[in-house]
Amino acid sequence: MGQSATKTFGILTAGGDCPGLNAAIRGVCRAAHDRYNMTAVGIANGFRGLIDEDWRILRPVDFMGILTRGGTILGTSREKPFKARSREYNNDIGEDKVATIKENYRSLKLDCLVVLGGNGTNTTGYLLAREGLNVLGLPKTIDNDIIGTDRTFGFHSALSIATEAIDRLHSTAQSHSRVMIIELMGHKAGWLSLYAGVAGGGDIILIPEIPYDIKVIARHLEKRTASGRSFSIVVVAEGALSVEEARMEKKERKKYREQTVSPSIAYRLAREIEAETGLETRATVLGYTQRGGIPSASDRVLATSLGTEAANLLARGEYGKMVALQGDAIGAVDLSIPAGKVKTVPADHYMVDTAMAVGTCMGV
Amino acid sequence: MGQSATKTFGILTAGGDCPGLNAAIRGVCRAAHDRYNMTAVGIANGFRGLIDEDWRILRPVDFMGILTRGGTILGTSREKPFKARSREYNNDIGEDKVATIKENYRSLKLDCLVVLGGNGTNTTGYLLAREGLNVLGLPKTIDNDIIGTDRTFGFHSALSIATEAIDRLHSTAQSHSRVMIIELMGHKAGWLSLYAGVAGGGDIILIPEIPYDIKVIARHLEKRTASGRSFSIVVVAEGALSVEEARMEKKERKKYREQTVSPSIAYRLAREIEAETGLETRATVLGYTQRGGIPSASDRVLATSLGTEAANLLARGEYGKMVALQGDAIGAVDLSIPAGKVKTVPADHYMVDTAMAVGTCMGV
Amino acid sequence: MGQSATKTFGILTAGGDCPGLNAAIRGVCRAAHDRYNMTAVGIANGFRGLIDEDWRILRPVDFMGILTRGGTILGTSREKPFKARSREYNNDIGEDKVATIKENYRSLKLDCLVVLGGNGTNTTGYLLAREGLNVLGLPKTIDNDIIGTDRTFGFHSALSIATEAIDRLHSTAQSHSRVMIIELMGHKAGWLSLYAGVAGGGDIILIPEIPYDIKVIARHLEKRTASGRSFSIVVVAEGALSVEEARMEKKERKKYREQTVSPSIAYRLAREIEAETGLETRATVLGYTQRGGIPSASDRVLATSLGTEAANLLARGEYGKMVALQGDAIGAVDLSIPAGKVKTVPADHYMVDTAMAVGTCMGV
Amino acid sequence: MGQSATKTFGILTAGGDCPGLNAAIRGVCRAAHDRYNMTAVGIANGFRGLIDEDWRILRPVDFMGILTRGGTILGTSREKPFKARSREYNNDIGEDKVATIKENYRSLKLDCLVVLGGNGTNTTGYLLAREGLNVLGLPKTIDNDIIGTDRTFGFHSALSIATEAIDRLHSTAQSHSRVMIIELMGHKAGWLSLYAGVAGGGDIILIPEIPYDIKVIARHLEKRTASGRSFSIVVVAEGALSVEEARMEKKERKKYREQTVSPSIAYRLAREIEAETGLETRATVLGYTQRGGIPSASDRVLATSLGTEAANLLARGEYGKMVALQGDAIGAVDLSIPAGKVKTVPADHYMVDTAMAVGTCMGV
Repeated sequence: MGQSATKTFGILTAGGDCPGLNAAIRGVCRAAHDRYNMTAVGIANGFRGLIDEDWRILRPVDFMGILTRGGTILGTSREKPFKARSREYNNDIGEDKVATIKENYRSLKLDCLVVLGGNGTNTTGYLLAREGLNVLGLPKTIDNDIIGTDRTFGFHSALSIATEAIDRLHSTAQSHSRVMIIELMGHKAGWLSLYAGVAGGGDIILIPEIPYDIKVIARHLEKRTASGRSFSIVVVAEGALSVEEARMEKKERKKYREQTVSPSIAYRLAREIEAETGLETRATVLGYTQRGGIPSASDRVLATSLGTEAANLLARGEYGKMVALQGDAIGAVDLSIPAGKVKTVPADHYMVDTAMAVGTCMGV
Repeated sequence: MGQSATKTFGILTAGGDCPGLNAAIRGVCRAAHDRYNMTAVGIANGFRGLIDEDWRILRPVDFMGILTRGGTILGTSREKPFKARSREYNNDIGEDKVATIKENYRSLKLDCLVVLGGNGTNTTGYLLAREGLNVLGLPKTIDNDIIGTDRTFGFHSALSIATEAIDRLHSTAQSHSRVMIIELMGHKAGWLSLYAGVAGGGDIILIPEIPYDIKVIARHLEKRTASGRSFSIVVVAEGALSVEEARMEKKERKKYREQTVSPSIAYRLAREIEAETGLETRATVLGYTQRGGIPSASDRVLATSLGTEAANLLARGEYGKMVALQGDAIGAVDLSIPAGKVKTVPADHYMVDTAMAVGTCMGV
Repeated sequence: MGQSATKTFGILTAGGDCPGLNAAIRGVCRAAHDRYNMTAVGIANGFRGLIDEDWRILRPVDFMGILTRGGTILGTSREKPFKARSREYNNDIGEDKVATIKENYRSLKLDCLVVLGGNGTNTTGYLLAREGLNVLGLPKTIDNDIIGTDRTFGFHSALSIATEAIDRLHSTAQSHSRVMIIELMGHKAGWLSLYAGVAGGGDIILIPEIPYDIKVIARHLEKRTASGRSFSIVVVAEGALSVEEARMEKKERKKYREQTVSPSIAYRLAREIEAETGLETRATVLGYTQRGGIPSASDRVLATSLGTEAANLLARGEYGKMVALQGDAIGAVDLSIPAGKVKTVPADHYMVDTAMAVGTCMGV
Repeated sequence: MGQSATKTFGILTAGGDCPGLNAAIRGVCRAAHDRYNMTAVGIANGFRGLIDEDWRILRPVDFMGILTRGGTILGTSREKPFKARSREYNNDIGEDKVATIKENYRSLKLDCLVVLGGNGTNTTGYLLAREGLNVLGLPKTIDNDIIGTDRTFGFHSALSIATEAIDRLHSTAQSHSRVMIIELMGHKAGWLSLYAGVAGGGDIILIPEIPYDIKVIARHLEKRTASGRSFSIVVVAEGALSVEEARMEKKERKKYREQTVSPSIAYRLAREIEAETGLETRATVLGYTQRGGIPSASDRVLATSLGTEAANLLARGEYGKMVALQGDAIGAVDLSIPAGKVKTVPADHYMVDTAMAVGTCMGV
């Protein structure tokens, strides 16, 4: 496998799927094939395929016509080969899996492994690079929480879907004079809820980074009612939490949540708001529809350009990097930059200022 | 109010809101105003406005530019003035409200009351007609469960939204080799789930009219897995129930549901499927996004033509009817036809046959 | 080819492509395969494939996953084997092609030929049936102009696309105080323009069936301006014509058009309106985007149910028919019903009444 | 008008309308009103309103509920008060209009004039600032051709619309084995065609910045045909031109175009391609639908954040600037930066590289 003069690389998608993965795969593979005459080995189901020896050579017909398709033609899994040692990076519980991956990387005679994924995937990529493999990462996630890139692909499609859902809730909220809560994805980072909340004209936006005070929310709703606006839209990230919870120890919070959140923050919040204000409140959990389907034009462009840049780096032998959008340019950062971190919303981010400037309550 | 030579009518929207209500209001009012020089009195918040004396004359500027707007400019409520006597139609607990409505109808010197709503609303319309009022009904609901019309407006918009959501789930189901369940609206009638399930290529469709056997579902999923299809889509109406539940007395079922369904059938079904098959299963509850937002082209056309036909009937003094789509014609039926009934999916409906012909499991 | 006990049928798509063709192919083939164990022979590029011997057996994998895909997996062409004799049905210029088709039908040992297409295709189907072949037709076209069915598949998708385009023009028309003309498909029948015009709130709708008087249009626009509405939307079918043209002989009209219409009615109309009213006017020709892309939910349902019904008829040996939507039922009509005819908009159709009732000018 | 302690500003929208204008107006006005207690004077129809004295104070009810509305509530015009002297900036033909604007600015006691528009509008803003007025600019255009900001609002919505149209053409191109040409807006800058072309998987993308050689296009199409791909999509900006035209003097080119382009480049190109290759070719001109309708989520976010930043600058008295997106930050540049210039696509932009890397022909 692999001709003497040209390169061979493995490519895999790991973690939750999101719109744009296939566009990115196509970007890498077409550029690598047409421009550099390289050979692509498609690895099935994320890192698991490198452990289970599940792969195949990708030919042009495999990555033709996939630009607009949701999901990933390679399949994905949440396999984290370094998992048990992730905190310390030095114990050896995940060793066997990692050793197998390294072995297979070598037996395939790969010049590089291209990994498409979120924080976890790029962290794994970084750790494999430290183990001596040539690795390139692409930043994919609807959460937009990867350090080193202005935007991840998948985020924009999710933003469009979430905003359209909020638009729809507006009319029913207004017709019934209700508080409508919509819960969006985002365990640790509130980007999606913040952007969709501003785009959808949410009256209240609650994100994990800014613990909410139910009293503040109640007062905001009452002020709206007093000024004649009979309905309100609340956009809440699944990882949002109250100031009380924010003060708890992790264990204590987990216990508290199990008692109060069933199965999601939106329903709890609905009960809290009804109890505090007496306003009729309804909850919607948007769920998995947020990350499926045809990628937005913007995500296709981003995924394609990040993909072709990965092929360019591959050709130049610049490994150990994650490609990234930087202003109006495509660049790359060392894989250590995103590894092990999460880009959360800073309290002074301009979008928080924007939300509050147009009258949105951020729960504080 | 009301000129001697021309007519004056009240118009209200009742029950849950849905796309197309404003298009229908515009249809009635423009035709009545432009063609027949009538006066429209907009009644706020359904029948409640006729009790609370909350109304205003609608001028052309009020119904201009509302064709594409979701919700209802008149507001709505679930007020059912005959409620307590609904089963018998002869006790007197709702009497005062009904008397008030009749009084206000007369004091407004209305020639007719036009009611836009679902089964409940048209039933109320029928009962008011029996009390001597001139009433015309329009069939509105995303459930499509009104007898006498081929289709209700609102249904088509909901079908589009639900189908788009199913489309999105396909890619994530496939990428993760999962069973994805999506719960759609429909307590008693499964039209929306049946149509969206067929449109979205659902592998399993469960509707209230056809109690499901979890063993049959499990076998279908296993057969799919065996034939190499690693994912499945399940479309379930919120009112779907198992064969065991179908056999229970109403009270017993209610108790059983409270114990097992939290907060919705989709989550219970996910647990049942995982227990039976071991397949990873995820649930999404589409919720209120199904009935908000811009109406589909088809619903705008239907709502507008039903609305103008109501104005035509009004002009001709043909009261006590509900306007209806009948094949490729617009007609009307006596209000007694839809009153007190629900159009459920017959077991031999061609869409059930269609679903099964393309390999969909209906749970039996 | 074909097992002794079960049937073998050919299936082809002819004429212009439209959304829903693949859904219909899947409907026919899945029902025929799963339910009746039949063999499907996919014929390439319409009737041309039956002349050029371009076909292949369709296996389940061929019609899997195509429900939502636009276009047709079989390809299409405008080949009309009976063409030269179409007017008379009795000369022999197309004979050779027809003879070849008959020969190939027999050499393939087909029990039936299933044709998906518009008026032309179903007419060809009818003529082949008269030649002794077993034929079943499915009514496909964005024009909705086939006699015998309430609706054709493809129409609804085109209606959605066209209406969305009109929605977009509204805002720019309003911002610039302009007359915006949008030209939609429809050479002989105005259904698409009529429905999209009503759905999009068009101020003027011009269709081939109702020749327009430019003076009437000008007066309508001026009345709007006088009443303070500074913009207008004109929806025009590509086959619309003026009262002057309607009076011309066919030849004379053709010559006249070549001089004045370049390349489409919308531009000519823009010039006429500007000349008559002095209002700034802009034209948009929606073109081929009207019939491509993902089919609407409604078209997928219709195409699937018509497809499965065709399989049912095939199994029962009921040939010589076109499947059809009839109210809330799926049925079939003799192929002679649609053959050689076009369903145009009757002047007294309820949608014409609806359009005029809400204040739309129909050009007369 | 205007309270002693707080500020009063005029706000206007000029040039072609585009999605996001109302979101930006709302952003400026809500932030200015809620946060800074300022008074907004809405000026009608761009700079014309400042000449014709057509304005009114905007109250919260005026900018409520407009976030998602297309167009501009203020109206717009192409009035360029400095027009005649624009090349030199020092003759006096536009003087009277400019003098009137300055007079009215003073009589209104404005602290600042906020102008929302494209290159022309921000250039006018710059010139007014040089005349002594306090001016702030916002970058709006679907062309994305303003220097100083990473992106203009309106661009993203147009990108979505154009990409969706290209998606639709794919299926019809494939079904009919045709070359489909789609013409997008963009007289001088090819950003929209370049991005939509990449997002839509265009096989050929032609932009004004890179004159095309019809022979190169023909060879690319023939190579595709030879490799079995029977259809192609060509995305062309309305301002695209051939290498022959690029060599002509401006006058000569104008004359040439009048003879050959009728009414648009797409039709000419179709003829050229058919003549060179014999492939069946069809043209679609997307037209005004590209810049109408509901703004995309992304444009709403950008417009809102740029709007609130303008209010912040206003409060701080930082005038003479255009607000701008800069990477993941909102900032501002001096109005001289965009004035009198157009941001065209550099030949070495990463998107040109991306397009070519995935096999797209750029006409050279």
